[in-house]
Amino acid sequence: MWAFINDKLIPAEEATIPVGDLAIQRGYAVFDFFRTAETVPLFIDDHLERLARSAKALRLPVKYSADEWKTIIRELLQKNGLSSSGIRITVTGGTSPDTYTPTEPNIIITQQQLVMKGEEGFQNGLHLITHEYVRDLPAIKTINYLMGVWLQQKVKVAGADDILYVKNGYISELPRSNIFVVSYDGTLSTPSSNILEGITRKYVLRLSKSLLPAMECDISMNDLIKSSEVFVTSTTKRLLPVLSINGQKIGEGKPGPVTKALYNSFLELEQKEIARGW
Amino acid sequence: MWAFINDKLIPAEEATIPVGDLAIQRGYAVFDFFRTAETVPLFIDDHLERLARSAKALRLPVKYSADEWKTIIRELLQKNGLSSSGIRITVTGGTSPDTYTPTEPNIIITQQQLVMKGEEGFQNGLHLITHEYVRDLPAIKTINYLMGVWLQQKVKVAGADDILYVKNGYISELPRSNIFVVSYDGTLSTPSSNILEGITRKYVLRLSKSLLPAMECDISMNDLIKSSEVFVTSTTKRLLPVLSINGQKIGEGKPGPVTKALYNSFLELEQKEIARGW
Repeated sequence: MWAFINDKLIPAEEATIPVGDLAIQRGYAVFDFFRTAETVPLFIDDHLERLARSAKALRLPVKYSADEWKTIIRELLQKNGLSSSGIRITVTGGTSPDTYTPTEPNIIITQQQLVMKGEEGFQNGLHLITHEYVRDLPAIKTINYLMGVWLQQKVKVAGADDILYVKNGYISELPRSNIFVVSYDGTLSTPSSNILEGITRKYVLRLSKSLLPAMECDISMNDLIKSSEVFVTSTTKRLLPVLSINGQKIGEGKPGPVTKALYNSFLELEQKEIARGW
Repeated sequence: MWAFINDKLIPAEEATIPVGDLAIQRGYAVFDFFRTAETVPLFIDDHLERLARSAKALRLPVKYSADEWKTIIRELLQKNGLSSSGIRITVTGGTSPDTYTPTEPNIIITQQQLVMKGEEGFQNGLHLITHEYVRDLPAIKTINYLMGVWLQQKVKVAGADDILYVKNGYISELPRSNIFVVSYDGTLSTPSSNILEGITRKYVLRLSKSLLPAMECDISMNDLIKSSEVFVTSTTKRLLPVLSINGQKIGEGKPGPVTKALYNSFLELEQKEIARGW
């Protein structure tokens, strides 16, 4: 496997960065992550646009344009020959002599094989627990997942699959996913604040337009628990039904029709993306 | 300059860690930092004890005992020949195949020359601004300084020196320092919660016993602004007077007698540490 560091492709096992980098010293870096299917990077323009936004928000200068990123990704794809994969681009705070002030970023691109769960994963769904928390700078895709990684133990002890962040009675997101709620009156909603705006979230909102009324708004725990369906979205999960939260069943405790319809629409969209190529 | 990675000393410019490490992927790592003066690491036992506690709290297995750390540090000191320095030990989440689950930590020890500011720095003091924030897992010395690094721009624009975190009207700490308040009735206080328990903080509390009543408690912004003296403590700052907060003068806007007395006591304690050797 090959990786890309700063300005060249190198064997992945040799991919390292200096220990003086602010990513290691202060957790200061941004990244983005996207999938390839049949060698096509899905929604690549959205991901590159978000990466540029994240870097700008953290005042990290990025030397590559969207076209230059794509040229590098083409080379990486060719070199590694993986059809279904995840590609991660990280832009760090750079090697910092005073261990606190950002400098010239180090650029890291890695590719890993990625097998999607498909229908069985969809049917199994997810069981969530909640935790009182809002991420720092939630709108920026930084590497700060301290809380998410730390909470894995809590998730494990509870026998759950993942965690939902809640603050003052209002839900926001999972450590690596957005959340959607379908009410019994047939409205789709997803939190509007304290979230990272996921790319899958964006397309699910767009696809929903032909199916049901949708809105971005504040959602209380109370609304969540009383809903008909709940699902999460992410690049690696697509859409996955949430069957219970804190042990409390959602709707009938099985994947619901709206989630299923949107899941199928999203699979179709993916096929269109693949057919379109890049 | 030499550094130590995992189990051996290597030239510092070759000190790197794999990009798959959770420190780089998810900001998941702990560290500690201490000074050497005349080649003696100050309060080394406190720092090693805190490092062990931090690592345990993040469920990172550390293979070295305090004595083994000391043997490594002795070798590093000998090799680098620096008398006044800062030594930083980082214990990372390790190289993680699933990019989310901690594994065997990577160990990083680096040493840098460190010149302390002395009397002039003390007289200049610090001007602070405040920001509504509490760190995640504040009692653990993780590498998560995303907010502190990000806020440097705000500090710069305000023409200030550093930032004080405040939440719901109560103060906690600076990104890299603890804070102390001397009231007009002659009591010393320092926040008891939402803080990292600094080593300098610990010794200042101990040294204060012969001078004035001291307590760890909740401190409101109101109490802070109405105080006679404010100072901060950290390994690199020792004690530094705070002369203003959000442009509002503290006391007479110059270093106060209690701060100065405690500063002198701390310098004496340092000399004792140096004389004691290790």
